[in-house]
Amino acid sequence: MRWASVLRVVGLLLMLFSTTMLPPALVALIHGDAGLEAFLIAFGALLLLGFLLWWPVRRVYQELRTRDGFLIVVLFWVVLGLSGALPLVFSPAPQVSWTDAAFESVSGLTTTGATVLTGIEHLPESIRYYRQQLQWLGGMGIIVLAVAILPMLGVGGMQLYRAETPGPVKDTKLTPRIAETAKTLWYIYLILTVSCALAYWGAGMGVLDAIGHSFATVAIGGFSTYDASMAHFDSPLISMICALFMLVAGINFAMHFLAWRSRSLAHYFKEPEVRWFLSILFGGGVIVTATLWTTGYHDDGWESLHQAIFHTVSIGTTAGFTADAYQDWPLYLPVLLTLMAFIGGCAMSTGGGIKVVRFMLLIKQGYREVVRLVHPRAVVPIKVGGRPVPDPVIDAVWGFFAVYVALFTLMMLLLMALGLDQVTAFSAVAATITNLGPGQGAVAAHYADIGDAAKWVLMFAMFLGRLEVFTLLVLFTPAFWRR
Amino acid sequence: MRWASVLRVVGLLLMLFSTTMLPPALVALIHGDAGLEAFLIAFGALLLLGFLLWWPVRRVYQELRTRDGFLIVVLFWVVLGLSGALPLVFSPAPQVSWTDAAFESVSGLTTTGATVLTGIEHLPESIRYYRQQLQWLGGMGIIVLAVAILPMLGVGGMQLYRAETPGPVKDTKLTPRIAETAKTLWYIYLILTVSCALAYWGAGMGVLDAIGHSFATVAIGGFSTYDASMAHFDSPLISMICALFMLVAGINFAMHFLAWRSRSLAHYFKEPEVRWFLSILFGGGVIVTATLWTTGYHDDGWESLHQAIFHTVSIGTTAGFTADAYQDWPLYLPVLLTLMAFIGGCAMSTGGGIKVVRFMLLIKQGYREVVRLVHPRAVVPIKVGGRPVPDPVIDAVWGFFAVYVALFTLMMLLLMALGLDQVTAFSAVAATITNLGPGQGAVAAHYADIGDAAKWVLMFAMFLGRLEVFTLLVLFTPAFWRR
Ligand SMILES: [K+]
Ligand SMILES: [K+]
Repeated sequence: MRWASVLRVVGLLLMLFSTTMLPPALVALIHGDAGLEAFLIAFGALLLLGFLLWWPVRRVYQELRTRDGFLIVVLFWVVLGLSGALPLVFSPAPQVSWTDAAFESVSGLTTTGATVLTGIEHLPESIRYYRQQLQWLGGMGIIVLAVAILPMLGVGGMQLYRAETPGPVKDTKLTPRIAETAKTLWYIYLILTVSCALAYWGAGMGVLDAIGHSFATVAIGGFSTYDASMAHFDSPLISMICALFMLVAGINFAMHFLAWRSRSLAHYFKEPEVRWFLSILFGGGVIVTATLWTTGYHDDGWESLHQAIFHTVSIGTTAGFTADAYQDWPLYLPVLLTLMAFIGGCAMSTGGGIKVVRFMLLIKQGYREVVRLVHPRAVVPIKVGGRPVPDPVIDAVWGFFAVYVALFTLMMLLLMALGLDQVTAFSAVAATITNLGPGQGAVAAHYADIGDAAKWVLMFAMFLGRLEVFTLLVLFTPAFWRR
Repeated sequence: MRWASVLRVVGLLLMLFSTTMLPPALVALIHGDAGLEAFLIAFGALLLLGFLLWWPVRRVYQELRTRDGFLIVVLFWVVLGLSGALPLVFSPAPQVSWTDAAFESVSGLTTTGATVLTGIEHLPESIRYYRQQLQWLGGMGIIVLAVAILPMLGVGGMQLYRAETPGPVKDTKLTPRIAETAKTLWYIYLILTVSCALAYWGAGMGVLDAIGHSFATVAIGGFSTYDASMAHFDSPLISMICALFMLVAGINFAMHFLAWRSRSLAHYFKEPEVRWFLSILFGGGVIVTATLWTTGYHDDGWESLHQAIFHTVSIGTTAGFTADAYQDWPLYLPVLLTLMAFIGGCAMSTGGGIKVVRFMLLIKQGYREVVRLVHPRAVVPIKVGGRPVPDPVIDAVWGFFAVYVALFTLMMLLLMALGLDQVTAFSAVAATITNLGPGQGAVAAHYADIGDAAKWVLMFAMFLGRLEVFTLLVLFTPAFWRR
């Protein structure tokens, strides 16, 4: 490991991250709320810490290799995730333990959106804003940071890009000039955020609510400034605006990039992953609507329709906003929606889950093996968009799936060992490893009532999900640290 | 499809199966119980039905192809499974519906061992014997029938052998002369049965109980002649005898064959699948024992030890005998044991689950992909016992796993649509697709309290599990029926 360079990058990242304490400090100043001091202390502490890491190694230049890149990407999420807890600890409200502050911050930055807080509407405005901003930064981290900022820091760009994004899209080189690509992606992310905020504001939200919820929407994060999440607004219009922007943010940003460059929407409908993504959500929406109708869950059929659409998109893309107690919906609906979160968003979107492209390859491979029983000698390549998928890519998807299932199982057993019941343990791991947020059972409304050890297991699950499992897991192999 | 030959085989099978009604009829005669008439009617009806299928096509000779083989194997389980319901319907006791009779018979023959009956000890002796015999026949079906009987009926032996057994062992040709192999396997199965019955008898069981439980043990079936299963005997000695024979029956019978021929036990410990099988059960047993001890679940540490060993082997091999209400054990134990059932026995054993060899390949592939992240250009073949596993075998395992997970999920949602709660639905599908037997929640003690539709879904799951998923699923592909 080239520790000097790794420390230099982490130091710079921390100094950069410390500046994100200033906007909430400004909010505190404007509202005269109790959070000001906490954000200024956090700003100073993180700036100093970053400086102390960076200063001794600032002149060491070593070319970073792939494994250093993995370590930096992991540290990016872990170090920033934990650092983000500082203002929550220092602020007089909420009164939270270190564990709870870390949980809230990691959940925010990884765009999971699981919360340990209640009475969010009574917290200082600056804290309410800060949680939303964490999500937005996390979304930006997924889309932009790894491509744009890190290469500028002297890390080989494509290496990290490769570590950050899932296997199947490794070959989709957007443009050879990575910094420019990153800038464009950042513009797209910014335009989506501004459009979403304007739409929320036009639909009746206050300014800070509109900005905060647009942050959490385009990041597919799911934090809200109200305990009741979207139900607070009780507005089908706001729900549908939210659904629209979650859909857009759940699509591969490479598609948005192509649409931007070519000024055409045709790419979206040619891309198999986008077609599967939209088809899965459409199919899910039909089933959910039909079930709510036939069981007569809502008195009003129109209510059932928009609640079904909203929650299918919100849970299916792994955003995790709620506008109704969907965990109490009849029959298989809560489980079905949770299973849709496992599929999640497209690769290179802000969505979580295993990603649509992997699900697509799993299904295609499964079907191929059934056909092979009838035609044992037939060579049936797996194709996506008319082109055969190389074997190493498919191997990687399988390895991913096996490891995903194995780790899911282990963490679920661990939570049960810590005393959680089966439904709670299953849904809590599902909601964190997919970066969804809300669970079922004891974690349906919030995560405040489970023990500290369980919270750390779930933070690990959030990191696993956000780092696409392998990126984190590789650090636990002896081969990674050898030589 | 070469229907004439398929009908001829099914007709012969039915006539053969009708003779299995005679031993329980004999039991009824000896005990003078109420079941005699039912078994004689079933004997006559099945003999006649088989004759009517066979007679018109008895002289048609067509060489059977692979796809005919698949159809015959599927029909073997489905037709015999449903035919076995006849005496249960005709007998004055138990009073059961057609659905319940079919469930009991399919559960018996597929060696699942899930029951809808209560008060089993009060049923006629002949019915109590018959349920156990169904399991033994099912176990024989797995080990012997497909290799021995079907080729004698004119079906190409190796084709069926290939359909019956899971992918990875396709190449382990035991001997070129398949009928002889089958005969040896049948001897081994018989010797195991007799030894097990003698051991049970020596440990204090009555003669019929000893025979009946040895049938269900070597078949890894799990039916008992008492509602309380092995708890009825309340004997650690009997539990340990049972565990020993479940262990032996859960090992690949090709290993027993080699041990028989070479008069040596060395093969067992050289075979990677056997080593994994024993290691998994040993590791599971240690965890279960330690958890029971630390939680102080039993007052007596010795009780905890033998209950832990017994249930780890019984659930881990998918036998499903119980000697304690393990579903009420603390923390993660019920879920952990259920997960061990998913791994199940070795390929070509009477055990269920996905089989140890598949689990082994899944884990190895998962680990390989993690290592590949560090060494992207390294060629790392997956090896079992020092030899690389061919890619098509690994592809088949992955396809199997994907389809298995997908079908599991669909059936679980279907059961929830039928009103079962999440824990019950999960455990019921798990207990039937792995051919385990006992579930959790509403199906912990028996399956009598769930609806008829749910029972048919679970019967489908039992067939899926016993037919290793693909063998049944291939019948639902258009490619199978083309031309
Ligand atoms: K989320
Ligand atoms: K069983």
